[in-house]
Amino acid sequence: MKIYAGIMAGGRGERFWPLSRERRPKQLLSLITGKTLLEETVERVKPLCGDRIFFITTQVLAEKIRAMYPDLPVLVEPQGRNTAPCALYAALWLIKRDQDALMALLPADHYIKNGQALRENLVFGAEFAREGNFVTFGIRPTRPETGYGYIEAGPPLAQKEAARAFKVRKFHEKPDREVAERYLKAGNFYWNSGMFLMRPSDLLEAMEKHAPDIWRVLEKYDLLTDRGLSGFYSEVPSISIDYAVMEKAEKMVVIEATFDWEDVGSFSALENLLEKDEKGNVKKGDVIYLNSSSNVFFSEKGLVAAYNVKDLIVVHTEDVTLIIPKEDAQKVKEILREVRKIKGFEKYWK
Amino acid sequence: MKIYAGIMAGGRGERFWPLSRERRPKQLLSLITGKTLLEETVERVKPLCGDRIFFITTQVLAEKIRAMYPDLPVLVEPQGRNTAPCALYAALWLIKRDQDALMALLPADHYIKNGQALRENLVFGAEFAREGNFVTFGIRPTRPETGYGYIEAGPPLAQKEAARAFKVRKFHEKPDREVAERYLKAGNFYWNSGMFLMRPSDLLEAMEKHAPDIWRVLEKYDLLTDRGLSGFYSEVPSISIDYAVMEKAEKMVVIEATFDWEDVGSFSALENLLEKDEKGNVKKGDVIYLNSSSNVFFSEKGLVAAYNVKDLIVVHTEDVTLIIPKEDAQKVKEILREVRKIKGFEKYWK
Repeated sequence: MKIYAGIMAGGRGERFWPLSRERRPKQLLSLITGKTLLEETVERVKPLCGDRIFFITTQVLAEKIRAMYPDLPVLVEPQGRNTAPCALYAALWLIKRDQDALMALLPADHYIKNGQALRENLVFGAEFAREGNFVTFGIRPTRPETGYGYIEAGPPLAQKEAARAFKVRKFHEKPDREVAERYLKAGNFYWNSGMFLMRPSDLLEAMEKHAPDIWRVLEKYDLLTDRGLSGFYSEVPSISIDYAVMEKAEKMVVIEATFDWEDVGSFSALENLLEKDEKGNVKKGDVIYLNSSSNVFFSEKGLVAAYNVKDLIVVHTEDVTLIIPKEDAQKVKEILREVRKIKGFEKYWK
Repeated sequence: MKIYAGIMAGGRGERFWPLSRERRPKQLLSLITGKTLLEETVERVKPLCGDRIFFITTQVLAEKIRAMYPDLPVLVEPQGRNTAPCALYAALWLIKRDQDALMALLPADHYIKNGQALRENLVFGAEFAREGNFVTFGIRPTRPETGYGYIEAGPPLAQKEAARAFKVRKFHEKPDREVAERYLKAGNFYWNSGMFLMRPSDLLEAMEKHAPDIWRVLEKYDLLTDRGLSGFYSEVPSISIDYAVMEKAEKMVVIEATFDWEDVGSFSALENLLEKDEKGNVKKGDVIYLNSSSNVFFSEKGLVAAYNVKDLIVVHTEDVTLIIPKEDAQKVKEILREVRKIKGFEKYWK
């Protein structure tokens, strides 16, 4: 059974505006290295999967991805409906292509430093997926993060060099600070990386069993035709794969990841990805600051000059500068919504 | 006796970086209207002085001013030595040109809304200057400003329509907050606008009497030759006209100005010159903000987008964005000093 990598490149990444624009979604940003998040995702799995890589994405991105990877299949979702329909579409497509496939679902907006470790973890996980388990990848928490979901590990199943596998006891939603502190101390709680490995047929079975709202719609359409696909997406509810299947399935395994991982979900993630100075500031690009602490300075072009500021995110592009407290990183969408309303400001978001 | 306007356009305006650059000093910025501060200064006195306008400036600005006003004389100071040497040079030059001149000294970086009122005040002041008084122009304070010097008025001398003239009792240095509050309440304290009107010969006499450190150097050189000018400026101490003469002279008059006035000394001045929204924010250019209060947003080009910030100055140019608390507006120079040190950042300040 061979591992196929289904790279999920949905979402517009509005929380990365002004870096992300309609014409340049988050997955095509170079945030840390010189490469885009999408390229990095592909390159991490390439040594393991070769040409067994495909994309599930939106219309906007599809064209650009096809231009970048003309030889790899691109599945296009007519509209975004969260990860459950996305995974289902991928599974139906893949099962037809290769009955014996294992499917890894990998978001294109994660940062993983050690690709080799990821590949080893995937191979390790494949041992369990092959036997009908849903395999998840759990990240050892390094801080009481409230922005991620958690996987609570149960009894150990196996060990392979540094990597360990456990039965999953329970999925947990994003906790508040106090609960996150408890998870951090407990030792058997992992960040849910949102990466999965499974047999497509197991996903279909579990959907039928646990996600009747989705299955009902699926029975009406053939997703592998254009018309069926658009019918399905116009009716299917927007549900995450975690909620639809993973939290309910019985045979769940978590691999304790041996790679560093961050969800690059908003600018505040940069704080964990760039090197901090002694006052807790991180920066990328032309930036100068004095008497400032705990800021995230990101300049794509031009100079950011700051004096006596604290806990801010400052993002500088050729034509827009965003200034927002770190704790409000999620509110970038609100600003963007306002920008969209103003006549003459189209150039700042399109 | 005719009024000549000597427009003092010295200083680099480093506190206006990144708007001001070496190649574009403060006086050539358009901060409020579409015109530069220099143009506005010229246009205010033009109806009164006609071609009796001259400039005292630095080498950097001289060329640009000559290009703008090819028919007006430009006196070039070989180096900046504060306002006393500048006023002395202007007086020596003017007395030779017109023995009967009255000289108004007007900084080119002030904002005055009502030019007509200024001209009327100058004409009113001329009545006193003609009789050998040094005439100053005092601005009725509207807030306990600690950034300006104050003129304490003594007994009234005359009134002409809305304008009143007083004997000067005393010049006061920039006060602290508490003292400024007292000045504001007192009623006979005025902001020292830094504009003066006098007979050049009176200035020379007063310099000889009150500013021996300057006079001594003057006796060695003929300022109206290139060699003499450069010799004088290389030796003369850097002293303000207030300190050298005004604070010591006997015949001092203050005209209570009937025009609005602001010294455009740093970005925080913009707060008094632009219209405030209900949360105390002022903005110019493409700016959008949410949940923010008491900020100064200035975008010369491109968009500033801010969320949940307070008491900040944000200045956006084509290639640089500055972020600094209002209370630190004077510290822009420190940031600029750092920028100058960094190789490759020349483009951001030259």
